[in-house]
Amino acid sequence: MLIELDRTSTVPLYRQIAEQLRARISSGELVPGTRLPPERRLAAVLGVNRTTVVNAYRELAADGLIVGHVGRGTIVADPSRLHEPGTPASGIPWPQLFTPATDVMNDPLLQDTMLVSSRPDVITFATGMPAPELYPIATMRQLLDEALHQAGQSLLQYCPAEGYPPLREALASWIAPSGMRFGPDDVLVVAGSQQGLYLLARALLEPGDIVAVESPTYLGALQVFRAVGARLLPIPVDQHGMRVGLLEDVVARRRPKLIYTLPTFQNPTGTTMSRDRRERLLALAARYQVPVIEDDPYGALRYAGESIPPLAALDQHGVVLYLSTVSKILFPGFRIGWIAGPRPVIERLAILKQIVDLDTNPLAQWAVWAFITRGLLDAHLERLRRHYPERLERMLAALERYATGVLEWTRPAGGFYVWCRLTDGLRARDLLPEAARRGVAFAPGESFHPDDAGTGTLRLNFTFPPVTAIEPGIARLAEAVQALRSIRLNGEGSRRARVVAPIV
Amino acid sequence: MLIELDRTSTVPLYRQIAEQLRARISSGELVPGTRLPPERRLAAVLGVNRTTVVNAYRELAADGLIVGHVGRGTIVADPSRLHEPGTPASGIPWPQLFTPATDVMNDPLLQDTMLVSSRPDVITFATGMPAPELYPIATMRQLLDEALHQAGQSLLQYCPAEGYPPLREALASWIAPSGMRFGPDDVLVVAGSQQGLYLLARALLEPGDIVAVESPTYLGALQVFRAVGARLLPIPVDQHGMRVGLLEDVVARRRPKLIYTLPTFQNPTGTTMSRDRRERLLALAARYQVPVIEDDPYGALRYAGESIPPLAALDQHGVVLYLSTVSKILFPGFRIGWIAGPRPVIERLAILKQIVDLDTNPLAQWAVWAFITRGLLDAHLERLRRHYPERLERMLAALERYATGVLEWTRPAGGFYVWCRLTDGLRARDLLPEAARRGVAFAPGESFHPDDAGTGTLRLNFTFPPVTAIEPGIARLAEAVQALRSIRLNGEGSRRARVVAPIV
Repeated sequence: MLIELDRTSTVPLYRQIAEQLRARISSGELVPGTRLPPERRLAAVLGVNRTTVVNAYRELAADGLIVGHVGRGTIVADPSRLHEPGTPASGIPWPQLFTPATDVMNDPLLQDTMLVSSRPDVITFATGMPAPELYPIATMRQLLDEALHQAGQSLLQYCPAEGYPPLREALASWIAPSGMRFGPDDVLVVAGSQQGLYLLARALLEPGDIVAVESPTYLGALQVFRAVGARLLPIPVDQHGMRVGLLEDVVARRRPKLIYTLPTFQNPTGTTMSRDRRERLLALAARYQVPVIEDDPYGALRYAGESIPPLAALDQHGVVLYLSTVSKILFPGFRIGWIAGPRPVIERLAILKQIVDLDTNPLAQWAVWAFITRGLLDAHLERLRRHYPERLERMLAALERYATGVLEWTRPAGGFYVWCRLTDGLRARDLLPEAARRGVAFAPGESFHPDDAGTGTLRLNFTFPPVTAIEPGIARLAEAVQALRSIRLNGEGSRRARVVAPIV
Repeated sequence: MLIELDRTSTVPLYRQIAEQLRARISSGELVPGTRLPPERRLAAVLGVNRTTVVNAYRELAADGLIVGHVGRGTIVADPSRLHEPGTPASGIPWPQLFTPATDVMNDPLLQDTMLVSSRPDVITFATGMPAPELYPIATMRQLLDEALHQAGQSLLQYCPAEGYPPLREALASWIAPSGMRFGPDDVLVVAGSQQGLYLLARALLEPGDIVAVESPTYLGALQVFRAVGARLLPIPVDQHGMRVGLLEDVVARRRPKLIYTLPTFQNPTGTTMSRDRRERLLALAARYQVPVIEDDPYGALRYAGESIPPLAALDQHGVVLYLSTVSKILFPGFRIGWIAGPRPVIERLAILKQIVDLDTNPLAQWAVWAFITRGLLDAHLERLRRHYPERLERMLAALERYATGVLEWTRPAGGFYVWCRLTDGLRARDLLPEAARRGVAFAPGESFHPDDAGTGTLRLNFTFPPVTAIEPGIARLAEAVQALRSIRLNGEGSRRARVVAPIV
């Protein structure tokens, strides 16, 4: 849970902050002894004056909810006195009842990032979202209306766990031109690719099992693998994708149960695995009989260069489980993704899907089916492939203009992201408040790393921000980097670096 | 996977049967040694002539896929010769890689039931679906159009894992008149109540933990609890709901981690827990600090008698986790349910929800929000409460007329189901093919039992079938019971009873 400020409200900002912190203390989310973020930092993240935070903290202190300790900062006080009058005391000690499987910490750095990113005055490069102004909203209005008019009763009903049969067929045909040969029964429709990852992890991993993942990689996958109790085997990524040679070196010793890769326009680095490495990865997987999840949300968004076949098209041994989604090529709101793979896996996943949520919204499935089979998705993709390169070029030009010498960056051939590195050992987490103060947000790279690496890296998304905001956003970011450099030169950096894991 | 026949196809029915069995043998779903159902039984279930099944089996036998054994029936042959030419051999021994968590057998009895139920010539009392002809389709067309017109960009976007904030608020207000006091932050929107159950089970149960469940109960809950490795403690249900006294007797000894109950218009029995038992159950849960999941999909559908407050309204100790859905009171296709409960649980579940599928379709959430806040849901419920009692009365009158003496049944005060018992020790699973032959389907009660009980029971749904189909459907069912009785009197019953767990 984040602190969200409603700037249109008549409730003063300091009261909003105090009330939200109070709720989180009452609920037990902030346990006694938790250190609240320093006033300056919270003010920067929220985009408010420091006095506002000071007043909020004073109010909470007056109520006995927090206490200031010299040298330890502001700490959440003993909660036994916190039950509001009228609230029945809970008979259940909830935190003691939760299973370890759900004991996944929210990443405070990401919470900061999302919070900054949601401020209306901030230009955000932090998201993984497509351009909302390109959503085919008028077409979708027509399609949904047509669907309910023609088949409302059946499309508002339950539907097979495996997916709406015509959509399974449409997806199998739609991916066939990339060389992937799947029939309708080899395709499972899921409620977004996150659910696909979850089902795959549940079906194939037990606590203690090892998963080879790229480092860095999609953080939703890291969360899924951690939630099922798997151990992560990080394999670094370079400009040709996962360093398969390093995996070859350790596979016999570590025996991973699963290999997870985003080979094409990778999230977060934007790099694409070379054909040679793809073939070596498949040979390795076949030799050791390790399934490979190929996560491919961005593959259709190539802006330059020759396309390389997906792993699923090169696979001669049935080792690849292909995962994709319409969230990046259409929009995320329908929650439609799919898995294509060997039929025994699809059938097993369908049983699990039924247990997890019965089925996927059939109306949304119908709309995606119609969008694909009427050729609208291919036309939409052409439109995206015309618009996104302009945004990418603007971002690269702005980086060139403003950030040369203080940032290094990649030039992706497709997808959503430019990957950057701070020079001189600066940390992206220290850059975040400086950037927030100047009205720009980015995704800190360390959150995408399964290990402690990547502290100097950041991910910049170029598809979501308005095209005219890209240059000023990069200018603000470069300013923030310069500010961080001068803070460090003045010796403030080392003090700030000791502030570990602020909660808000 | 079921055998589904397309009667409009030019492919002969026997070929359709053979091809589908062939696919299931190739995929490994039907492993070598699996006994196929006897020809007569499969013919009855599919609604085809016995010759059709004989021809299908002959074709598979000619291909070496199945073999006939005297005394053992028809058996799936060795699979090593089954790879079709052109299909790459899989490098992965999939069945050996699946985790035990997913090792949930499809219930063959239910598969039979669903199969019969889906035949166009069959009157089905087997489903748990609301009347499709009462879906407010025109209103939903308008709402979805309005939503996309006004806020398309944000409603096709990602949304908070906890749910669309206005819907959380609307749900909290909408359930308040029943005496449940929850704020918006105490409500989690989920993709249908099945997902709610799954998240609760994952958050609160580890393998080996004990869950007290009603016997019989909702079978999707049994599947969830089994999938997370829990052990079930069945507590019988009588006309006043769960026999709480029996739970009181064993709770100290068995120490359940969770109590799961459907106290109002229970699925499958239709019974409602008395107020006295509700209070005893809550006292017991508070004393032993055991959370109670109150599953309440049908509570708003009372047709007679005084309403009894939900457990969540009577709860003084914060032990109840209230679960409900719009699937039964509106329609299932939007996949919208919710959990209301103590905030630490809601926050923990939100983290898990994010891992499982990120968020719930925001457009569907908006539509449900608008439907509730504009008073349309209350109006719709009044309409359902006018229509459904007529269907219930028709069913009860038809039972009176046709089934007196061969069936016993309940008279529910609300909900979707009439619960029946066969007299003279007949088994519902033996009734199914007789009913299928006569064009009527029901849900066998034993599937809802966590133990081996209930073989003589059946669940009849009165909301889904067209109102004019209810009387003829019950007449067919009574005929089937009479036929089963005469088969048994002729000594065939004991032979049939030896056919255990047919796969199809």
